[in-house]
Amino acid sequence: MVQQGIATLVVVGVGLIGGSFALSLKRAGLVGHVIGVGRTRDNLLRALELGVVDEISQDLAAVAPRADVVLLASPVGQMGRLMQSMAGKLPAHAIVTDAGSTKSDVAALFRQFLPDHLPRCVPAHPIAGSELSGAAAAQYGLYEKRKVVLTPLPETEEDACEGIAALWRACGAVIHRMSPAEHDAVFATVSHLPHLLAFAYVGMVAGKDDAQRCFDFAATGFRDFTRIAGGHPEMWRDISLANREALLVELERFRQQLDTITQQVRDSNEAGLADSFDKARAARVAWHQKFLREGQT
Amino acid sequence: MVQQGIATLVVVGVGLIGGSFALSLKRAGLVGHVIGVGRTRDNLLRALELGVVDEISQDLAAVAPRADVVLLASPVGQMGRLMQSMAGKLPAHAIVTDAGSTKSDVAALFRQFLPDHLPRCVPAHPIAGSELSGAAAAQYGLYEKRKVVLTPLPETEEDACEGIAALWRACGAVIHRMSPAEHDAVFATVSHLPHLLAFAYVGMVAGKDDAQRCFDFAATGFRDFTRIAGGHPEMWRDISLANREALLVELERFRQQLDTITQQVRDSNEAGLADSFDKARAARVAWHQKFLREGQT
Repeated sequence: MVQQGIATLVVVGVGLIGGSFALSLKRAGLVGHVIGVGRTRDNLLRALELGVVDEISQDLAAVAPRADVVLLASPVGQMGRLMQSMAGKLPAHAIVTDAGSTKSDVAALFRQFLPDHLPRCVPAHPIAGSELSGAAAAQYGLYEKRKVVLTPLPETEEDACEGIAALWRACGAVIHRMSPAEHDAVFATVSHLPHLLAFAYVGMVAGKDDAQRCFDFAATGFRDFTRIAGGHPEMWRDISLANREALLVELERFRQQLDTITQQVRDSNEAGLADSFDKARAARVAWHQKFLREGQT
Repeated sequence: MVQQGIATLVVVGVGLIGGSFALSLKRAGLVGHVIGVGRTRDNLLRALELGVVDEISQDLAAVAPRADVVLLASPVGQMGRLMQSMAGKLPAHAIVTDAGSTKSDVAALFRQFLPDHLPRCVPAHPIAGSELSGAAAAQYGLYEKRKVVLTPLPETEEDACEGIAALWRACGAVIHRMSPAEHDAVFATVSHLPHLLAFAYVGMVAGKDDAQRCFDFAATGFRDFTRIAGGHPEMWRDISLANREALLVELERFRQQLDTITQQVRDSNEAGLADSFDKARAARVAWHQKFLREGQT
């Protein structure tokens, strides 16, 4: 099916993630017609104007019967309701996928709200975040060399999974597969925990009596370290709670490491501190070299 | 003195910080002759080749009698020895300044090793770091719009302090003054603590059984959050121990904030988490807007 392209794509949530997916597939000639669905009429009109979508709707249930593929690119908090509205309305062949940052919860939602459609459900996570949002943020090339993790359910049919993989590959992405639980453990470590640490750190500074003077002398190290504390508070609240179990494990692990380093400072343990910093630096340098080699920036 | 420029500048440590200072003063026409002093002959030769310095020496004691201004741009761990080697050899008018990231310890070293020269000693901290090092990293414009904090001793003469301020202003920098203790408290908050957190975080990830898979999925948020974990391990060990007291206070403060957020995750406290993240985000956004308005990037 996908090799010849898909006739109708429904994108729910026409912002950076959903809009860029639609634009990239259009450029690749892999989609005939894109229906943009959302809550904000102004944003939908903007998406239409910009050619990100060909048709707009605020009623997912009404357009679901025409879908070949549905991408849920909405906050995870809205997904249950969205899935529910499609139940019994999707063509049997239609594939439903998503772009949420957590996967165990999305898998559970599919199971709860689309129990008869599970063979065509493909939970997925494109690794391409940004503070940008709205239809105007949609861009060709966003997914070039980015990773997309597919976390199929036991029920998911291989051709549905491969169909979604082919669409993402057409956007320039590199496909990985793992289970929802594996996904959530990995992203608790490399994404969710650092967001919490950045929020905690900036919150701590902001709460100091001399916060203003501290901020006055913050420079480029602070800028980069805290960039992710500019993320959307509600989105990160939802992610933190959706991935609560894995995140608590990582928080405890981090606390132990911080306790170790704090004790090394307290003891003026020169060799211990140099060793802690040295191991971290070596790992970071090796990671960054690999990241650049993969063409990521 | 400085208004007419200085005849001879001695720069100890000809890397990014010291080299860029020399280059910027040369371009401003404020220095007649620059002597570069260092431990590594290859780096000194490179500095000479690149026109960063006009003369090189590996013997600070031998060139100190010719200095009008000495900039110690070496790791803080070497400064005591360097000061000692200049004792009794400096002209009475010569001003000695430094570029160390901590100031209470440098103030104490001045007091210990140059007790008869304190009126001409000006501890200072240019806020311009980078992972780059060596003479080849020296650049015009590094200090453009950057902040330089001067932390004069009670004994420091105003004309010495103003002389160093004028040189940094000629490099494009903005001058601030505070006490060494105030400086160290502020930088424990905005620089030293985030470095420790970044080192602790990367160290924690690197120590996991599934570290390689985690690193494979780390993206731009991870990249920025961990950039400062690429810093020099020995330099950060020295800074952490030089500013041990202030840093321990900040570590404890951070741990309390992290405990609060961890408890909010544990309790699935939606309102609490959203509030924690919201306050941090608002502070970060306001800080970044101000940072950009000041022309910093």
